[in-house]
Amino acid sequence: MDRSELPVLGQPPRERADAARNRVRLLDAAAALVAEQGAEHVTMEAVAAAACVGKGTLFRRFGDRAGLMLALIDHAEQEYQHAFMTGPPPLGPGADPLERLEAFGVATVRFELRYLDVLLAAEPCATKRCLVPARALRVTHVCTLLRQAGCAGRGGDVEPLAQALVGYLEPALLHHLHRQRHFSAERIEDGWRDLVALAGPVGSPT
Amino acid sequence: MDRSELPVLGQPPRERADAARNRVRLLDAAAALVAEQGAEHVTMEAVAAAACVGKGTLFRRFGDRAGLMLALIDHAEQEYQHAFMTGPPPLGPGADPLERLEAFGVATVRFELRYLDVLLAAEPCATKRCLVPARALRVTHVCTLLRQAGCAGRGGDVEPLAQALVGYLEPALLHHLHRQRHFSAERIEDGWRDLVALAGPVGSPT
Repeated sequence: MDRSELPVLGQPPRERADAARNRVRLLDAAAALVAEQGAEHVTMEAVAAAACVGKGTLFRRFGDRAGLMLALIDHAEQEYQHAFMTGPPPLGPGADPLERLEAFGVATVRFELRYLDVLLAAEPCATKRCLVPARALRVTHVCTLLRQAGCAGRGGDVEPLAQALVGYLEPALLHHLHRQRHFSAERIEDGWRDLVALAGPVGSPT
Repeated sequence: MDRSELPVLGQPPRERADAARNRVRLLDAAAALVAEQGAEHVTMEAVAAAACVGKGTLFRRFGDRAGLMLALIDHAEQEYQHAFMTGPPPLGPGADPLERLEAFGVATVRFELRYLDVLLAAEPCATKRCLVPARALRVTHVCTLLRQAGCAGRGGDVEPLAQALVGYLEPALLHHLHRQRHFSAERIEDGWRDLVALAGPVGSPT
Protein backbone atom coordinates (compact mmCIF):
# COMPACT_ATOMS: atom_id res chain seq x y z
CA MET A 1 0.00 0.00 0.00
CA ASP A 2 1.24 3.45 -0.93
CA ARG A 3 0.83 6.12 1.76
CA SER A 4 -0.89 8.31 -0.85
CA GLU A 5 -3.78 5.83 -0.79
CA LEU A 6 -4.73 6.80 2.81
CA PRO A 7 -7.80 9.09 2.75
CA VAL A 8 -7.54 12.62 4.14
CA LEU A 9 -10.33 13.61 6.56
CA GLY A 10 -12.78 16.10 5.06
CA GLN A 11 -11.41 15.73 1.54
CA PRO A 12 -12.80 13.60 -1.26
CA PRO A 13 -10.84 10.31 -1.65
CA ARG A 14 -9.10 11.70 -4.71
CA GLU A 15 -5.85 9.85 -4.01
CA ARG A 16 -7.58 6.45 -4.14
CA ALA A 17 -8.85 6.98 -7.67
CA ASP A 18 -5.44 8.41 -8.62
CA ALA A 19 -3.71 5.40 -7.07
CA ALA A 20 -5.94 2.99 -8.97
CA ARG A 21 -5.26 4.85 -12.22
CA ASN A 22 -1.52 4.86 -11.53
CA ARG A 23 -1.61 1.15 -10.78
CA VAL A 24 -3.33 0.44 -14.09
CA ARG A 25 -0.83 2.71 -15.89
CA LEU A 26 2.11 0.79 -14.37
CA LEU A 27 0.53 -2.57 -15.24
CA ASP A 28 -0.22 -1.43 -18.81
CA ALA A 29 3.42 -0.41 -19.22
CA ALA A 30 4.54 -3.79 -17.86
CA ALA A 31 2.05 -5.65 -20.09
CA ALA A 32 3.32 -3.81 -23.19
CA LEU A 33 6.89 -4.81 -22.34
CA VAL A 34 5.87 -8.43 -21.71
CA ALA A 35 4.06 -8.51 -25.08
CA GLU A 36 7.21 -7.17 -26.75
CA GLN A 37 9.92 -9.15 -24.98
CA GLY A 38 8.30 -12.05 -23.08
CA ALA A 39 7.80 -12.02 -19.28
CA GLU A 40 11.20 -13.59 -18.60
CA HIS A 41 13.09 -10.63 -20.09
CA VAL A 42 11.20 -7.80 -18.36
CA THR A 43 13.07 -6.05 -15.51
CA MET A 44 11.78 -3.61 -12.86
CA GLU A 45 14.11 -0.96 -14.34
CA ALA A 46 12.56 -1.33 -17.80
CA VAL A 47 8.98 -1.11 -16.45
CA ALA A 48 9.85 1.98 -14.37
CA ALA A 49 11.44 3.66 -17.40
CA ALA A 50 8.50 2.79 -19.68
CA ALA A 51 6.00 4.16 -17.13
CA CYS A 52 8.14 7.27 -16.43
CA VAL A 53 8.31 6.63 -12.67
CA GLY A 54 11.19 5.92 -10.32
CA LYS A 55 12.08 2.30 -9.53
CA GLY A 56 11.20 3.08 -5.88
CA THR A 57 7.56 3.73 -6.82
CA LEU A 58 7.37 0.33 -8.51
CA PHE A 59 8.91 -1.48 -5.50
CA ARG A 60 6.65 0.42 -3.02
CA ARG A 61 3.60 -0.57 -5.05
CA PHE A 62 4.37 -4.23 -5.84
CA GLY A 63 6.99 -5.32 -3.31
CA ASP A 64 9.31 -7.02 -5.79
CA ARG A 65 9.45 -8.36 -9.35
CA ALA A 66 7.42 -11.46 -8.38
CA GLY A 67 4.74 -9.19 -6.85
CA LEU A 68 4.59 -7.09 -10.02
CA MET A 69 4.32 -10.23 -12.16
CA LEU A 70 1.50 -11.63 -10.02
CA ALA A 71 -0.38 -8.30 -10.20
CA LEU A 72 0.24 -8.27 -13.95
CA ILE A 73 -1.07 -11.80 -14.51
CA ASP A 74 -4.13 -10.94 -12.43
CA HIS A 75 -4.72 -7.82 -14.55
CA ALA A 76 -4.12 -9.75 -17.80
CA GLU A 77 -6.33 -12.64 -16.67
CA GLN A 78 -9.17 -10.18 -16.05
CA GLU A 79 -8.81 -8.67 -19.53
CA TYR A 80 -8.68 -12.15 -21.10
CA GLN A 81 -11.80 -13.22 -19.16
CA HIS A 82 -13.66 -10.07 -20.20
CA ALA A 83 -12.73 -10.77 -23.82
CA PHE A 84 -14.26 -14.26 -23.90
CA MET A 85 -17.19 -13.51 -21.57
CA THR A 86 -18.40 -10.14 -22.87
CA GLY A 87 -16.04 -9.00 -25.65
CA PRO A 88 -16.76 -8.82 -29.40
CA PRO A 89 -17.26 -12.01 -31.47
CA PRO A 90 -15.88 -14.47 -32.45
CA LEU A 91 -14.36 -14.72 -28.94
CA GLY A 92 -17.29 -13.07 -27.18
CA PRO A 93 -21.06 -13.64 -27.51
CA GLY A 94 -22.68 -13.42 -30.96
CA ALA A 95 -20.70 -16.00 -32.94
CA ASP A 96 -21.47 -19.71 -33.50
CA PRO A 97 -20.55 -21.61 -30.28
CA LEU A 98 -17.88 -23.74 -31.98
CA GLU A 99 -16.38 -20.63 -33.60
CA ARG A 100 -16.26 -19.10 -30.12
CA LEU A 101 -14.65 -22.27 -28.78
CA GLU A 102 -12.02 -22.16 -31.52
CA ALA A 103 -11.30 -18.49 -30.75
CA PHE A 104 -11.20 -19.24 -27.02
CA GLY A 105 -8.43 -21.81 -27.36
CA VAL A 106 -6.38 -19.62 -29.68
CA ALA A 107 -6.73 -16.64 -27.28
CA THR A 108 -5.77 -18.87 -24.34
CA VAL A 109 -2.67 -20.24 -26.09
CA ARG A 110 -1.55 -16.67 -26.90
CA PHE A 111 -2.28 -15.39 -23.38
CA GLU A 112 -0.38 -18.27 -21.78
CA LEU A 113 2.63 -18.23 -24.07
CA ARG A 114 2.99 -14.52 -23.29
CA TYR A 115 2.92 -15.07 -19.51
CA LEU A 116 4.32 -18.61 -19.48
CA ASP A 117 7.07 -18.13 -16.91
CA VAL A 118 4.79 -16.26 -14.53
CA LEU A 119 2.07 -18.92 -14.89
CA LEU A 120 4.53 -21.78 -14.35
CA ALA A 121 6.03 -20.12 -11.26
CA ALA A 122 2.54 -19.54 -9.83
CA GLU A 123 1.18 -23.05 -10.57
CA PRO A 124 -0.79 -24.43 -7.60
CA CYS A 125 -0.03 -27.91 -6.24
CA ALA A 126 -1.74 -30.99 -7.72
CA THR A 127 -4.57 -31.19 -5.18
CA LYS A 128 -5.55 -27.52 -5.60
CA ARG A 129 -4.85 -26.95 -9.29
CA CYS A 130 -8.33 -27.73 -10.62
CA LEU A 131 -10.04 -25.67 -7.89
CA VAL A 132 -8.40 -22.40 -8.97
CA PRO A 133 -11.30 -20.09 -10.00
CA ALA A 134 -9.61 -19.06 -13.29
CA ARG A 135 -9.40 -22.74 -14.36
CA ALA A 136 -12.92 -23.54 -13.13
CA LEU A 137 -14.21 -20.61 -15.21
CA ARG A 138 -12.53 -22.05 -18.33
CA VAL A 139 -14.17 -25.42 -17.78
CA THR A 140 -17.57 -23.77 -17.25
CA HIS A 141 -17.13 -21.65 -20.38
CA VAL A 142 -16.11 -24.64 -22.53
CA CYS A 143 -19.00 -26.74 -21.12
CA THR A 144 -21.46 -23.94 -21.97
CA LEU A 145 -20.21 -23.64 -25.56
CA LEU A 146 -20.22 -27.43 -26.05
CA ARG A 147 -23.81 -27.62 -24.77
CA GLN A 148 -24.86 -24.73 -27.02
CA ALA A 149 -23.28 -26.57 -29.97
CA GLY A 150 -25.13 -29.77 -29.06
CA CYS A 151 -21.92 -31.75 -28.37
CA ALA A 152 -22.40 -34.16 -25.49
CA GLY A 153 -21.29 -37.65 -24.55
CA ARG A 154 -23.48 -40.47 -23.22
CA GLY A 155 -25.95 -39.17 -20.64
CA GLY A 156 -25.42 -35.60 -21.89
CA ASP A 157 -22.09 -35.36 -20.05
CA VAL A 158 -19.99 -32.61 -21.68
CA GLU A 159 -17.56 -32.33 -18.77
CA PRO A 160 -15.02 -35.02 -19.81
CA LEU A 161 -14.59 -33.39 -23.22
CA ALA A 162 -14.38 -29.94 -21.60
CA GLN A 163 -11.73 -31.19 -19.16
CA ALA A 164 -9.70 -32.80 -21.96
CA LEU A 165 -9.90 -29.56 -23.99
CA VAL A 166 -8.92 -27.38 -21.01
CA GLY A 167 -6.15 -29.90 -20.25
CA TYR A 168 -4.63 -29.17 -23.67
CA LEU A 169 -4.34 -25.53 -22.54
CA GLU A 170 -2.49 -26.24 -19.25
CA PRO A 171 0.62 -24.05 -18.93
CA ALA A 172 2.77 -27.12 -18.11
CA LEU A 173 1.79 -28.75 -21.44
CA LEU A 174 2.19 -25.55 -23.48
CA HIS A 175 5.64 -25.13 -21.91
CA HIS A 176 6.51 -28.71 -22.90
CA LEU A 177 5.25 -28.41 -26.48
CA HIS A 178 6.64 -24.91 -27.13
CA ARG A 179 9.91 -24.80 -25.17
CA GLN A 180 10.94 -28.44 -24.89
CA ARG A 181 9.57 -29.82 -28.17
CA HIS A 182 9.80 -26.58 -30.17
CA PHE A 183 6.23 -26.68 -31.51
CA SER A 184 5.42 -23.24 -32.95
CA ALA A 185 2.48 -21.28 -31.52
CA GLU A 186 0.74 -21.92 -34.88
CA ARG A 187 1.11 -25.70 -34.57
CA ILE A 188 -0.28 -25.61 -31.02
CA GLU A 189 -3.20 -23.44 -32.20
CA ASP A 190 -3.85 -25.77 -35.17
CA GLY A 191 -3.90 -28.64 -32.68
CA TRP A 192 -6.64 -26.83 -30.79
CA ARG A 193 -8.61 -26.31 -34.02
CA ASP A 194 -8.31 -30.05 -34.71
CA LEU A 195 -9.70 -30.83 -31.26
CA VAL A 196 -12.65 -28.45 -31.76
CA ALA A 197 -13.27 -30.01 -35.18
CA LEU A 198 -13.52 -33.44 -33.48
CA ALA A 199 -16.16 -32.06 -31.09
CA GLY A 200 -18.20 -30.97 -34.13
CA PRO A 201 -17.37 -29.15 -37.39
CA VAL A 202 -17.41 -25.35 -36.97
CA GLY A 203 -20.50 -23.82 -38.57
CA SER A 204 -22.50 -27.06 -38.50
CA PRO A 205 -23.26 -28.06 -34.90
CA THR A 206 -24.31 -31.70 -34.56
CA MET B 1 20.34 -52.42 0.79
CA ASP B 2 20.02 -55.47 3.00
CA ARG B 3 23.32 -56.99 4.20
CA SER B 4 22.13 -60.36 2.91
CA GLU B 5 22.49 -58.97 -0.61
CA LEU B 6 26.31 -58.82 -0.32
CA PRO B 7 27.85 -61.75 -2.26
CA VAL B 8 29.94 -64.32 -0.40
CA LEU B 9 33.30 -65.14 -2.02
CA GLY B 10 33.37 -68.59 -3.62
CA GLN B 11 29.61 -69.09 -3.31
CA PRO B 12 27.00 -68.59 -5.99
CA PRO B 13 25.21 -65.21 -5.59
CA ARG B 14 22.17 -66.98 -4.18
CA GLU B 15 21.32 -64.15 -1.81
CA ARG B 16 20.88 -61.65 -4.66
CA ALA B 17 18.21 -63.73 -6.33
CA ASP B 18 16.65 -64.35 -2.92
CA ALA B 19 16.71 -60.63 -2.18
CA ALA B 20 15.03 -59.83 -5.47
CA ARG B 21 12.36 -62.46 -4.82
CA ASN B 22 11.82 -61.14 -1.29
CA ARG B 23 11.52 -57.62 -2.59
CA VAL B 24 8.85 -58.68 -5.08
CA ARG B 25 7.07 -60.63 -2.34
CA LEU B 26 6.99 -57.54 -0.09
CA LEU B 27 5.78 -55.34 -2.94
CA ASP B 28 3.09 -57.86 -3.93
CA ALA B 29 1.84 -57.90 -0.33
CA ALA B 30 1.80 -54.09 -0.28
CA ALA B 31 0.04 -53.95 -3.68
CA ALA B 32 -2.67 -56.36 -2.49
CA LEU B 33 -3.30 -54.16 0.57
CA VAL B 34 -3.40 -51.01 -1.57
CA ALA B 35 -5.90 -52.68 -3.91
CA GLU B 36 -8.06 -53.60 -0.90
CA GLN B 37 -7.85 -50.41 1.16
CA GLY B 38 -6.39 -47.62 -1.02
CA ALA B 39 -2.79 -46.37 -0.68
CA GLU B 40 -3.67 -43.77 1.95
CA HIS B 41 -4.81 -46.42 4.48
CA VAL B 42 -1.87 -48.81 4.16
CA THR B 43 0.62 -48.79 7.06
CA MET B 44 4.09 -50.34 7.34
CA GLU B 45 2.75 -52.56 10.15
CA ALA B 46 0.01 -53.96 7.90
CA VAL B 47 2.40 -54.67 5.02
CA ALA B 48 4.88 -56.40 7.36
CA ALA B 49 2.08 -58.54 8.83
CA ALA B 50 0.70 -59.45 5.39
CA ALA B 51 4.18 -60.43 4.12
CA CYS B 52 4.99 -62.33 7.37
CA VAL B 53 8.16 -60.33 8.04
CA GLY B 54 9.18 -58.03 10.86
CA LYS B 55 8.64 -54.27 10.49
CA GLY B 56 12.44 -53.88 10.70
CA THR B 57 12.91 -55.82 7.44
CA LEU B 58 10.51 -53.49 5.68
CA PHE B 59 12.27 -50.36 7.01
CA ARG B 60 15.74 -51.74 6.16
CA ARG B 61 14.60 -52.50 2.62
CA PHE B 62 12.64 -49.33 1.78
CA GLY B 63 13.81 -46.69 4.28
CA ASP B 64 10.36 -45.44 5.24
CA ARG B 65 6.71 -45.51 4.17
CA ALA B 66 7.37 -42.99 1.37
CA GLY B 67 10.23 -45.19 0.11
CA LEU B 68 7.97 -48.27 0.11
CA MET B 69 5.25 -46.34 -1.74
CA LEU B 70 7.70 -45.11 -4.39
CA ALA B 71 9.06 -48.67 -4.88
CA LEU B 72 5.47 -49.88 -5.08
CA ILE B 73 4.39 -47.34 -7.68
CA ASP B 74 7.49 -48.19 -9.71
CA HIS B 75 6.60 -51.90 -9.52
CA ALA B 76 2.92 -51.22 -10.35
CA GLU B 77 3.84 -48.84 -13.20
CA GLN B 78 5.99 -51.59 -14.74
CA GLU B 79 3.15 -54.11 -14.55
CA TYR B 80 0.72 -51.58 -16.03
CA GLN B 81 3.16 -50.78 -18.86
CA HIS B 82 3.69 -54.49 -19.60
CA ALA B 83 -0.08 -54.95 -19.75
CA PHE B 84 -0.64 -52.31 -22.45
CA MET B 85 2.61 -52.93 -24.34
CA THR B 86 2.76 -56.73 -24.45
CA GLY B 87 -0.20 -58.11 -22.46
CA PRO B 88 -3.31 -59.87 -23.78
CA PRO B 89 -5.94 -57.95 -25.84
CA PRO B 90 -7.95 -55.76 -25.69
CA LEU B 91 -5.31 -53.80 -23.69
CA GLY B 92 -2.32 -55.42 -25.39
CA PRO B 93 -1.60 -56.11 -29.09
CA GLY B 94 -4.15 -58.03 -31.16
CA ALA B 95 -7.29 -55.93 -30.73
CA ASP B 96 -8.59 -53.08 -32.90
CA PRO B 97 -6.49 -49.94 -32.14
CA LEU B 98 -9.48 -47.94 -30.85
CA GLU B 99 -10.55 -50.88 -28.66
CA ARG B 100 -7.00 -50.91 -27.29
CA LEU B 101 -7.19 -47.14 -26.74
CA GLU B 102 -10.47 -47.52 -24.85
CA ALA B 103 -8.97 -50.29 -22.68
CA PHE B 104 -5.83 -48.21 -22.14
CA GLY B 105 -7.74 -45.27 -20.63
CA VAL B 106 -9.87 -47.50 -18.43
CA ALA B 107 -6.75 -49.34 -17.17
CA THR B 108 -5.02 -46.01 -16.53
CA VAL B 109 -7.96 -44.59 -14.57
CA ARG B 110 -8.05 -47.74 -12.40
CA PHE B 111 -4.28 -47.76 -11.88
CA GLU B 112 -4.22 -44.09 -10.91
CA LEU B 113 -7.24 -44.13 -8.62
CA ARG B 114 -5.62 -47.02 -6.76
CA TYR B 115 -2.32 -45.16 -6.27
CA LEU B 116 -3.72 -41.61 -6.32
CA ASP B 117 -2.12 -40.32 -3.13
CA VAL B 118 1.28 -41.74 -4.02
CA LEU B 119 1.07 -40.28 -7.55
CA LEU B 120 -0.01 -36.86 -6.26
CA ALA B 121 2.78 -36.75 -3.68
CA ALA B 122 5.34 -37.72 -6.32
CA GLU B 123 4.12 -35.27 -9.01
CA PRO B 124 7.06 -33.50 -10.72
CA CYS B 125 7.07 -29.69 -11.04
CA ALA B 126 5.41 -28.00 -14.04
CA THR B 127 8.54 -27.67 -16.17
CA LYS B 128 9.50 -31.35 -15.79
CA ARG B 129 6.08 -33.03 -15.68
CA CYS B 130 5.75 -33.81 -19.39
CA LEU B 131 9.34 -35.10 -19.63
CA VAL B 132 8.76 -37.94 -17.14
CA PRO B 133 9.40 -41.19 -19.12
CA ALA B 134 6.16 -42.83 -17.88
CA ARG B 135 4.09 -39.91 -19.24
CA ALA B 136 6.10 -39.74 -22.48
CA LEU B 137 5.43 -43.47 -23.00
CA ARG B 138 1.68 -42.89 -22.63
CA VAL B 139 1.76 -40.15 -25.26
CA THR B 140 3.77 -42.36 -27.63
CA HIS B 141 1.39 -45.29 -27.07
CA VAL B 142 -1.72 -43.15 -27.69
CA CYS B 143 -0.11 -41.57 -30.80
CA THR B 144 0.67 -45.06 -32.16
CA LEU B 145 -2.89 -46.30 -31.63
CA LEU B 146 -4.39 -43.13 -33.16
CA ARG B 147 -2.15 -43.49 -36.21
CA GLN B 148 -3.05 -47.18 -36.55
CA ALA B 149 -6.74 -46.21 -36.40
CA GLY B 150 -6.22 -43.56 -39.08
CA CYS B 151 -7.17 -40.65 -36.77
CA ALA B 152 -5.09 -37.58 -37.52
CA GLY B 153 -5.55 -33.82 -37.63
CA ARG B 154 -4.45 -31.45 -40.39
CA GLY B 155 -0.97 -32.35 -41.61
CA GLY B 156 -1.27 -35.82 -40.06
CA ASP B 157 -0.59 -34.41 -36.57
CA VAL B 158 -1.96 -36.85 -33.97
CA GLU B 159 -0.01 -35.32 -31.09
CA PRO B 160 -2.51 -32.63 -29.98
CA LEU B 161 -5.28 -35.23 -29.68
CA ALA B 162 -2.91 -37.61 -27.89
CA GLN B 163 -1.89 -34.86 -25.45
CA ALA B 164 -5.53 -33.92 -24.77
CA LEU B 165 -6.38 -37.59 -24.16
CA VAL B 166 -3.39 -38.14 -21.86
CA GLY B 167 -4.28 -34.84 -20.14
CA TYR B 168 -7.65 -36.34 -19.18
CA LEU B 169 -5.69 -39.05 -17.33
CA GLU B 170 -3.49 -36.68 -15.27
CA PRO B 171 -3.57 -37.63 -11.56
CA ALA B 172 -4.37 -34.01 -10.59
CA LEU B 173 -7.52 -34.08 -12.74
CA LEU B 174 -8.61 -37.55 -11.61
CA HIS B 175 -8.16 -36.37 -8.01
CA HIS B 176 -10.33 -33.33 -8.74
CA LEU B 177 -13.09 -35.28 -10.49
CA HIS B 178 -13.14 -38.21 -8.07
CA ARG B 179 -12.37 -36.68 -4.67
CA GLN B 180 -13.46 -33.07 -5.03
CA ARG B 181 -16.39 -33.45 -7.44
CA HIS B 182 -17.37 -36.99 -6.42
CA PHE B 183 -17.49 -38.40 -9.97
CA SER B 184 -17.58 -42.20 -9.72
CA ALA B 185 -14.81 -44.23 -11.37
CA GLU B 186 -17.48 -45.40 -13.86
CA ARG B 187 -18.38 -41.84 -14.87
CA ILE B 188 -14.70 -40.99 -15.37
CA GLU B 189 -14.24 -44.17 -17.46
CA ASP B 190 -17.37 -43.40 -19.52
CA GLY B 191 -15.91 -39.93 -20.13
CA TRP B 192 -12.81 -41.61 -21.56
CA ARG B 193 -14.98 -43.83 -23.79
CA ASP B 194 -16.73 -40.68 -25.06
CA LEU B 195 -13.38 -39.11 -25.91
CA VAL B 196 -12.26 -42.20 -27.80
CA ALA B 197 -15.59 -42.27 -29.64
CA LEU B 198 -14.90 -38.69 -30.80
CA ALA B 199 -11.54 -39.78 -32.20
CA GLY B 200 -13.37 -42.45 -34.24
CA PRO B 201 -16.06 -45.05 -33.47
CA VAL B 202 -14.57 -48.25 -32.04
CA GLY B 203 -14.59 -51.05 -34.62
CA SER B 204 -14.82 -48.71 -37.61
CA PRO B 205 -11.63 -46.64 -37.90
CA THR B 206 -12.06 -43.56 -40.10
